[in-house]
Amino acid sequence: MSFTIAEIAQHINGKIVGDPNYIICGVGTLSSATSTQLSFLSNNKYKKFLSESKAGVIIVGEGLANSVNTNAIEVANPYVAYAKAATFICVDEKQLAKIHHTAWIDDSASIGANVSIGPNVSIAENVTIANNVRIAAGTVIEHDVSIAESSDVRANVTICYGSKIGAHVLIHPGVVIGADGFGIANDNGRWIKVPQLGSVVISDYVEIGANTTIDRGAIDDTFIAEGVKLDNQIQIAHNVKIGKHTVIAGCVGIAGSTTIGENCAVGGGSGVAGHLDIADGVQLMGMSMVTKSIRTSGVYSSGIPSEPSHTWQRNIARYRQLDKLFDRVKALEVTEKPQS
Amino acid sequence: MSFTIAEIAQHINGKIVGDPNYIICGVGTLSSATSTQLSFLSNNKYKKFLSESKAGVIIVGEGLANSVNTNAIEVANPYVAYAKAATFICVDEKQLAKIHHTAWIDDSASIGANVSIGPNVSIAENVTIANNVRIAAGTVIEHDVSIAESSDVRANVTICYGSKIGAHVLIHPGVVIGADGFGIANDNGRWIKVPQLGSVVISDYVEIGANTTIDRGAIDDTFIAEGVKLDNQIQIAHNVKIGKHTVIAGCVGIAGSTTIGENCAVGGGSGVAGHLDIADGVQLMGMSMVTKSIRTSGVYSSGIPSEPSHTWQRNIARYRQLDKLFDRVKALEVTEKPQS
Amino acid sequence: MSFTIAEIAQHINGKIVGDPNYIICGVGTLSSATSTQLSFLSNNKYKKFLSESKAGVIIVGEGLANSVNTNAIEVANPYVAYAKAATFICVDEKQLAKIHHTAWIDDSASIGANVSIGPNVSIAENVTIANNVRIAAGTVIEHDVSIAESSDVRANVTICYGSKIGAHVLIHPGVVIGADGFGIANDNGRWIKVPQLGSVVISDYVEIGANTTIDRGAIDDTFIAEGVKLDNQIQIAHNVKIGKHTVIAGCVGIAGSTTIGENCAVGGGSGVAGHLDIADGVQLMGMSMVTKSIRTSGVYSSGIPSEPSHTWQRNIARYRQLDKLFDRVKALEVTEKPQS
Repeated sequence: MSFTIAEIAQHINGKIVGDPNYIICGVGTLSSATSTQLSFLSNNKYKKFLSESKAGVIIVGEGLANSVNTNAIEVANPYVAYAKAATFICVDEKQLAKIHHTAWIDDSASIGANVSIGPNVSIAENVTIANNVRIAAGTVIEHDVSIAESSDVRANVTICYGSKIGAHVLIHPGVVIGADGFGIANDNGRWIKVPQLGSVVISDYVEIGANTTIDRGAIDDTFIAEGVKLDNQIQIAHNVKIGKHTVIAGCVGIAGSTTIGENCAVGGGSGVAGHLDIADGVQLMGMSMVTKSIRTSGVYSSGIPSEPSHTWQRNIARYRQLDKLFDRVKALEVTEKPQS
Repeated sequence: MSFTIAEIAQHINGKIVGDPNYIICGVGTLSSATSTQLSFLSNNKYKKFLSESKAGVIIVGEGLANSVNTNAIEVANPYVAYAKAATFICVDEKQLAKIHHTAWIDDSASIGANVSIGPNVSIAENVTIANNVRIAAGTVIEHDVSIAESSDVRANVTICYGSKIGAHVLIHPGVVIGADGFGIANDNGRWIKVPQLGSVVISDYVEIGANTTIDRGAIDDTFIAEGVKLDNQIQIAHNVKIGKHTVIAGCVGIAGSTTIGENCAVGGGSGVAGHLDIADGVQLMGMSMVTKSIRTSGVYSSGIPSEPSHTWQRNIARYRQLDKLFDRVKALEVTEKPQS
Repeated sequence: MSFTIAEIAQHINGKIVGDPNYIICGVGTLSSATSTQLSFLSNNKYKKFLSESKAGVIIVGEGLANSVNTNAIEVANPYVAYAKAATFICVDEKQLAKIHHTAWIDDSASIGANVSIGPNVSIAENVTIANNVRIAAGTVIEHDVSIAESSDVRANVTICYGSKIGAHVLIHPGVVIGADGFGIANDNGRWIKVPQLGSVVISDYVEIGANTTIDRGAIDDTFIAEGVKLDNQIQIAHNVKIGKHTVIAGCVGIAGSTTIGENCAVGGGSGVAGHLDIADGVQLMGMSMVTKSIRTSGVYSSGIPSEPSHTWQRNIARYRQLDKLFDRVKALEVTEKPQS
């Protein structure tokens, strides 16, 4: 689609420095954009590319238009403005609603208006699908699931029985929602199954990345609050609760019954043990290992970053001798004292 | 379903303190259970909720009934008893066996009695499915797979050719069993494929969590012994062997040809390198990094738990100066000696 | 299939020590192979099994045939030779090309010659599938995807719209290619979606393990170069670029916009932060935590391997006292100096 810079600036509430009638029909990075594309600068690391960019217009922070050799739109938050502009220019929300003839939909299911259902989908007994929902090919919706309006369930997803999905939720391929939690009890050396009788509640505006898994609760429900964004390959165990507007990067595992607060950010590869409470506003850096509750907002880290293997081996050896080193220092201090 | 406390107590071999004719028709946690629900206390952390619970009956350890303000059932192991009671009260095993008309089953496949096969399932050549097996929607069973009686394969699972699945096995959505192991050989700078000619054998009473992957063997088979319980998002590489009644929590990776003993417990996020032997009865705490065989049962850990980022940075800096610190202490000791 | 040792030796360019007319019809490990099977020795750890092996022929390194009590084939690289011999003996590439009647293929899709398409596959608008491609059951190919010749897409895979798959690519079950990258912008406390407008390009001879995910680019494409081999459960974020002939083991996460060089090897469970550059020829040991670019080829490690939990706790306590220990040593040094 094509838009004038004036139309785009109005959409993102920005100030034009340049030609408002210039036509834009796509987006690009500062270094790849062509003269009909919009670009943006939000990370100062890339400021060096600003003057050389061949983009038709560049979204920049306030006061930066004079560093741009093409048209500019100044805004308070260039990344947010770019997100809105790119959606405006490039995303065509109007798709033909269509129920594919190879989909199987049980007669007891309730399907809203303007719903799209892809090939080889299966929708079981007593499912409720609200208006404007899309369900892509190969996805399985088990019995008694409800999906609220305008949610978008991509291909090969599994939503297990009884799960409740909010509105404007986006679920990527391969996601599994509502599989049994890992509940086992040791009965004289054999593990017996603890039935997983709770469900999963996904609130509005949640996004769930590819191949992420969210288990159903043991008794009560697993709960994901409004606006939570989950990346790929995440494991959310039974009875976890995640607060509003928290974001979790890829490959994270959250063990059972742990509560993560609101507005948290969990770095990729982190692991949070079970039955913990993480306060609102906690930021965990990548690969954090969390074994205790965190009661105060702030930034937390763990792990020792990689180094050349020969120094790594030496440092580990030293680490393992620490206890003896403390003894040696103690001995020196003891020897020292009588002298003073 | 509804049961008297007497019926439940008989099923779990417990001692009733209260009204044996009281009717129960569900389960709840100590804090959420209503007067028609059963609850339990197995973790003393929750003992404070005991007296306030509105549950109709509470399963407790021996001698604890007098702390309960409602009916109680005393047992030796409350968590095991709860698992059995909840299964008794809440799980209806009787499902209508049905082969869905959208499933594709090759003519050469052998399908037992009372088998359920869901929508859009595909079952290829020479597959053998025993009595009372259930296969849910979207699942793919490749040629020459066998599945023994009463196993339950949930939605969108892939079981690759030749895999052997035991009886009473439960496989959650998104699981992949029998994909090629990661076998490559470097032929003058290019990696060529080493054909993966073994298979996967899953023994009886194994449970496999959502999106877990178990690769086929390179020559011999990958083997999961009886009663093993695997959580979600686990990677089991080719030719791994896992001993009886071992449990593995989510997000664990076990590299190729490693053997894990019987009755082990592997914490979430752990990684075990290839070609190792882990003894029976080993417990690995969460996020363990195992690079050598473990010959003795016991509890093992690794990693340094998260801390505020400013102390984390300082501690890492100190860690990297350890070698020099050892030199400094050595120098002090040398200076010290002549004085004594 | 059956072959003489002479035929096999010719295929792998090896030197026969023994009977060239001996018949072989399978492969086995040194300890499991029977008299009609071929085996090999590439890891000296297994040399002790050489003399006792009952294999019909053993592939060994140059000069080792005299340690073998059966027929031998000497080669420069036994593992590469085994890979080629096992493929020659055991892999029958000739499969009947067949388009299954339950597959749905949009009329606008272009399907080459000798293509196999399995049950319940869906192939959307404007897809291009080249000659000799196989697509297994339950796989979803979204619109505008192209797959070049002789590629093999296994069951329950999702290839999202616009992805470009090269020739001779092997994609294992449960893989998701081209899901949205994790692009979000914080708009006054709420996260809004940054549209993911790039695509994914997978070059020739790439292998992708089960349940691995590769996200589409935000603006430019995510790129996997020729000959890259990825194991299971890997997460490749948006705009990552992976150089030729790099191999990545299971459970690795590579964050957004990071570039991995050519001929690298990334150990299982490693995590690489975003916006980094990893040089050609870098080897990361298992569970590496990479937070900075690596400019020089070589071997890198991180993490402290597991140990018995009681020494682990003691070592961590000491680690956390390091800052004070440095102060104590400093104090000793200061006391020392005036004395000298």
